[in-house]
Amino acid sequence: MDRRSFLTKGAVGGAAAATASALAAPAYAQGNRTLTFVTTWGRGLAGVHDAAQHCADVITAMTDGQLTVDLKAAGELVGAFEVFDAVAAGQADMYHGVDYYFLGQHPALSFFSQIPFGMNFQEYSNWWYHDGGKELGDELYSIFGLKAFPSGNTGPQSGGWFAKEMTSVEDFQGLRFRMPGQGGQALGKLGASVQNLPGAEVYQALASGAIDGTEWIGPWADEKAGFQEITKFYYTSGFHEPGPNLNTVVSLDVWDSLTPAQQAIFEQACTATNIWSMSQFMANNSAALQRLQSGGVQVLEFNDEIWDAFGAAAQEVVAENMGDELYARCYDSYMTSLQASANWSSRSEGETTMQRNRVLGI
Amino acid sequence: MDRRSFLTKGAVGGAAAATASALAAPAYAQGNRTLTFVTTWGRGLAGVHDAAQHCADVITAMTDGQLTVDLKAAGELVGAFEVFDAVAAGQADMYHGVDYYFLGQHPALSFFSQIPFGMNFQEYSNWWYHDGGKELGDELYSIFGLKAFPSGNTGPQSGGWFAKEMTSVEDFQGLRFRMPGQGGQALGKLGASVQNLPGAEVYQALASGAIDGTEWIGPWADEKAGFQEITKFYYTSGFHEPGPNLNTVVSLDVWDSLTPAQQAIFEQACTATNIWSMSQFMANNSAALQRLQSGGVQVLEFNDEIWDAFGAAAQEVVAENMGDELYARCYDSYMTSLQASANWSSRSEGETTMQRNRVLGI
Repeated sequence: MDRRSFLTKGAVGGAAAATASALAAPAYAQGNRTLTFVTTWGRGLAGVHDAAQHCADVITAMTDGQLTVDLKAAGELVGAFEVFDAVAAGQADMYHGVDYYFLGQHPALSFFSQIPFGMNFQEYSNWWYHDGGKELGDELYSIFGLKAFPSGNTGPQSGGWFAKEMTSVEDFQGLRFRMPGQGGQALGKLGASVQNLPGAEVYQALASGAIDGTEWIGPWADEKAGFQEITKFYYTSGFHEPGPNLNTVVSLDVWDSLTPAQQAIFEQACTATNIWSMSQFMANNSAALQRLQSGGVQVLEFNDEIWDAFGAAAQEVVAENMGDELYARCYDSYMTSLQASANWSSRSEGETTMQRNRVLGI
Repeated sequence: MDRRSFLTKGAVGGAAAATASALAAPAYAQGNRTLTFVTTWGRGLAGVHDAAQHCADVITAMTDGQLTVDLKAAGELVGAFEVFDAVAAGQADMYHGVDYYFLGQHPALSFFSQIPFGMNFQEYSNWWYHDGGKELGDELYSIFGLKAFPSGNTGPQSGGWFAKEMTSVEDFQGLRFRMPGQGGQALGKLGASVQNLPGAEVYQALASGAIDGTEWIGPWADEKAGFQEITKFYYTSGFHEPGPNLNTVVSLDVWDSLTPAQQAIFEQACTATNIWSMSQFMANNSAALQRLQSGGVQVLEFNDEIWDAFGAAAQEVVAENMGDELYARCYDSYMTSLQASANWSSRSEGETTMQRNRVLGI
């Protein structure tokens, strides 16, 4: 992770966005356009910025000069957590990010990024493309004049880095830990003091002892962040993000101004980026985990007592917004789809993979 | 499954292809082209023909009339098993299929479709997009003047339908069973009489008692085929196809004639179809399995003794072609990648999903 990856809100945002908007305008008249693509990710941030760049590059390549997608990393035009507002307000054309950063806008955005104990990549793809997710997403994002397209996934995020082995639920009492979204809210119910630090500040906070532990993404991104220099207790699986969906979100005004062929290119570029991104994390996580283990990191799993406590807390958090009608409809659709796909997958891919790994000694 | 889904080789193939080629020629001159897309799948065949159609439709939509992809189902231009030769010979521009049908052309095609106990969808995506698979695939297909792009996946295929519960390896002795590819070869080593019937003949063969059992794809496609009308013993997981990759394969001559933007569109359309297709199977398999169970089908898993026998036979079959230099290089790359990604996934998605399902009671 680039330790300067996130910039929080600053005065630079609005002014720079207004300039970019003015610059983009002349290109419209010539039939060729530049789309300004802001993102929650710092430039070069492993995997996540790569996904945004890949999406930008393939749209540009496929439109043969009609659309040039100009990716501005976090802080280059607006801050990481300003991108939702910037695109909704027309200061930028589109953004790439993970929408649990914007639960203050609408709690149902959690379903289109990640709820704790929620869907993994394949289950989310099932829900979005074939089982009602896209229609609910269109309804939700249109409230803000936006339209979302899945275009990246980190795969299951690691449980994180701790100063010692976690052997009971009591170990979370008073623990100062970095975790965003509903997962972080759930950890708070176990007595942890949850902090939502921007990525750029996590390494320093852990090194200085300001926090006791952190999660970030997975072995590849975590190794780049350097957490193994500070602590050696690493939990590879976690409850908080079984497969966070990264969206490309475009202004509906911009979307409506595209030709049908450009819309098709935009949508398919995002879909193609989705699997490209998930598999990039998978490929790099494997090798990084091996390096971390070789470097003396202890690779651990939480025990069932801790998983049970995570489960109770997570279900409590996810149920807190059921008073919102759209949230409740998203919840019902999401959980019905999750139940169905998990029922099949456990009998199919789960069993097949378990037996293969057992037989081949993997 | 459409029971008329496969047509085997017939006189219609060559003549019709030549006609199509002649018809396509005038369009070249106008800058707009029709690409003839043949396939191993019968028209409307659940999931697999859908993937080919989706790929065709998005290429057509994205190129805004420059390329019209005209999908010809199996038997409409050439037979299901003629598509490889037809595209290699220039009688059609591209095909969609699963390349273990063409192991007679080159045994290494098994790695780019499926080896028994091989990769699942995410592992194959990892290998192809990020871990050396694409480069080896380009080398292999170029021998035949072809270029392949992953563009669909059925997810793990079911173990299949049997006349009785399978409780020991001895139960496979003399069993007349339909299974293609290296999986079928492995089953033969357990004493089964393996038949490679085209899909159109499977239902009738099973109903008449000409075969004792069959595998096809999974609950969705199997239910459409109607196997549950004949037998009630269904094994949902199997060793033979943990995630068969469906390719779109284009003639290199056609590929080289495309503009860079058209090539980008072609490639991204296939990639987008890949995740669209995998998740379509997943969505439909869940519901179909529930219907099959409600209809009295017994859903079973093989015991460890049988899985061990599958494993020994499969490893023997996969090793048989190691005398071929390219096959051996593909094997080494594939198995190294599988080992690495499975090592990570078992600690990550495997553990996370197992705990989630346990805690949520799925």
